[in-house]
Amino acid sequence: MTTRVYNFNPGPAALPLPVLERVRDELLDYKGTGMSVMEMSHRSQEFSRILEEAIARIKRLLKLDDRFQVLFLQGGASLQFCMVPMNLALTGKPIDYIDTGTWSSKAIQEAKILGKDVRVIASSEDKEYSYIPGNFSVDEDASYLHITSNNTIRGTQWKSFPNTGGIPLVADMSSDIFSRVFDPSPFGLIYAGAQKNAGPAGVTIVIIRKDMLERVPPELPTMLKYTTYAEKNSLYNTPPCFAIYVVGLVMEWLEEEIGGLEKMEAINRSKAEMLYSCIDEIEMYRGTAHPDSRSMMNVTFRLPTPELEKKFVEEAAQRGLVGLKGHRSVGGCRASLYNAVPVEAVEKLVEFMREFARNN
Amino acid sequence: MTTRVYNFNPGPAALPLPVLERVRDELLDYKGTGMSVMEMSHRSQEFSRILEEAIARIKRLLKLDDRFQVLFLQGGASLQFCMVPMNLALTGKPIDYIDTGTWSSKAIQEAKILGKDVRVIASSEDKEYSYIPGNFSVDEDASYLHITSNNTIRGTQWKSFPNTGGIPLVADMSSDIFSRVFDPSPFGLIYAGAQKNAGPAGVTIVIIRKDMLERVPPELPTMLKYTTYAEKNSLYNTPPCFAIYVVGLVMEWLEEEIGGLEKMEAINRSKAEMLYSCIDEIEMYRGTAHPDSRSMMNVTFRLPTPELEKKFVEEAAQRGLVGLKGHRSVGGCRASLYNAVPVEAVEKLVEFMREFARNN
Ligand SMILES: Cc1ncc(COP(=O)(O)O)c(C=O)c1O
Ligand SMILES: Cc1ncc(COP(=O)(O)O)c(C=O)c1O
Ligand SMILES: [Mg+2]
Ligand SMILES: [Mg+2]
Ligand SMILES: [Mg+2]
Ligand SMILES: [Mg+2]
Repeated sequence: MTTRVYNFNPGPAALPLPVLERVRDELLDYKGTGMSVMEMSHRSQEFSRILEEAIARIKRLLKLDDRFQVLFLQGGASLQFCMVPMNLALTGKPIDYIDTGTWSSKAIQEAKILGKDVRVIASSEDKEYSYIPGNFSVDEDASYLHITSNNTIRGTQWKSFPNTGGIPLVADMSSDIFSRVFDPSPFGLIYAGAQKNAGPAGVTIVIIRKDMLERVPPELPTMLKYTTYAEKNSLYNTPPCFAIYVVGLVMEWLEEEIGGLEKMEAINRSKAEMLYSCIDEIEMYRGTAHPDSRSMMNVTFRLPTPELEKKFVEEAAQRGLVGLKGHRSVGGCRASLYNAVPVEAVEKLVEFMREFARNN
Repeated sequence: MTTRVYNFNPGPAALPLPVLERVRDELLDYKGTGMSVMEMSHRSQEFSRILEEAIARIKRLLKLDDRFQVLFLQGGASLQFCMVPMNLALTGKPIDYIDTGTWSSKAIQEAKILGKDVRVIASSEDKEYSYIPGNFSVDEDASYLHITSNNTIRGTQWKSFPNTGGIPLVADMSSDIFSRVFDPSPFGLIYAGAQKNAGPAGVTIVIIRKDMLERVPPELPTMLKYTTYAEKNSLYNTPPCFAIYVVGLVMEWLEEEIGGLEKMEAINRSKAEMLYSCIDEIEMYRGTAHPDSRSMMNVTFRLPTPELEKKFVEEAAQRGLVGLKGHRSVGGCRASLYNAVPVEAVEKLVEFMREFARNN
């Protein structure tokens, strides 16, 4: 018999059970083709349909109009840290960044390696990245402004996106894409490694506003140019077919079982509120993010001692509540409540947290 | 009921049935973890074991000693076309290439885009890339010599690798890695998109001789440096975990069910001989590759007219023999006989070819 745990992993992370069941059932014979999706040509009609449907669902879910194009790349969000400035930096125009922790810091670092003119216009480093900066002004001559919409490690999240007065926004949405509704119009580019809210590791979703493609320098290596993917609908070379297929199934689940991002956001909000209430209420737990910057996706908290945290994580795992250890760079505890984590999992976690607090 | 076809796809391509069955059976609960491999942290003990085992099996199968390191990257073989020269070209030393068709040509093109000093020391372009050049001399001052071990499109394959007198060989082995035994010592680097002989699309295997890492320019973007992957055992960022898992299972199948590369090579040789004999024997079929350059992996052939070729491909598909259309750039027919294509599939194909010739 299959026993499934409650999975609070930060990424790769929980996938919707109905999606996994579909993948299992179709694994040896995809819709009567007599082969697995892993064995199909990326230029076959069947895969073409999988690709088109995944794109169409992403566009509907995010309410992207035809100014935007959805691309599938490889290399993780980390490759985007260098691809974005390579492709979108304009000569003589600085790139503005807001530094909200590890991932923004790495993005900044890669732009610097490329020798770009980087301006960090705001940072929350002064308080261990425990908040989202509110006080900054975007250079009106900037190539673009880069932000990380959700800091997976520190558990902070932009509640609304900065007004850039027409400067394109670029966002690393790896850990909160598809978790809530937002207006895509200020965005020039959005990228996300799929492995938190959208599918398995091994595919990166890039959403680009088509006018941004005009910025791409012609002399870049072919595989590092967004135009290569845009012109060939992500089929210049062999894409990560199976990962795209799973992303498509996750999008189908979001549209057809959940009912879209408004509904998903409401569920995510109630899960997060349930957990933050427990943290606030019980003396033993202390949230690490500033209340107005708290992430709905990654709930970070501490217990009085590292020993108690260790015990907490271990006892939780014994109860089938796994993935609760904080990121190795900051310690503590973290519960990632991505879309595929059911309300029931959070209920069980809160139940366990109450009990653990009573007994320790 | 599951009906499986005989799959002659050029890549993504057939996978061993026992591997697919394992993937299916473990999909919701990998070895009692209560989660799918797709849901596991890449830093978990379980995934670490999957990764280490895949590496160990690749090293054993290819008889790689500790001078070599096995890395898992993303971006396909196509990304390697630019990464190799970025990382391994030495200042003031030209890069030598042998051009055996589309894939070598693309590799050459990417080195040129980077402004490298490229020398094409041999090419079979004069005869539509129907043979592997035999007459060339490697520049004794070259950074390295790049070859494509098997031309997937033209159906040509290097029978033995060129003697470079100490200049490191670099090979794109995308379409024949793990198909036969070879001596790895002259190689500085080997790369292969997994989607032909090693697993699903979405992971690129890179085998690097460790001394080559000293060439990597420190100022490259982090994700484009081999040192990043080498220093972190392919875990600098989230690797394509699921694809690596499937590669590991294919390697297990190669070692434990097939019995290693000597045995695999013998099987591959007998499959290819069976098909080439049929082509040579029957008037209607004409092999396109020069006999001494014929690939054991991709058997390319023509029928008298494009109309007959179309009919051939369609009738074959009706019999459950799929993927026989030649590459869109060259037309004709192609049967890819990768490791996972069973002898039985080739027998059925030959049977059909005899019948088709009689009836047309
Ligand atoms: C916000 C954010 N950006 C980037 C990354 C790095 O992603 P990848 O491992 O796909 O390169 C992560 C990984 O956790 C992340 O959370
Ligand atoms: C020999 C060879 N090299 C490179 C490639 C391109 O590989 P990818 O699609 O993984 O970039 C192929 C694809 O068929 C190939 O056959
Ligand atoms: Mg972060
Ligand atoms: Mg509290
Ligand atoms: Mg080729
Ligand atoms: Mg003949």
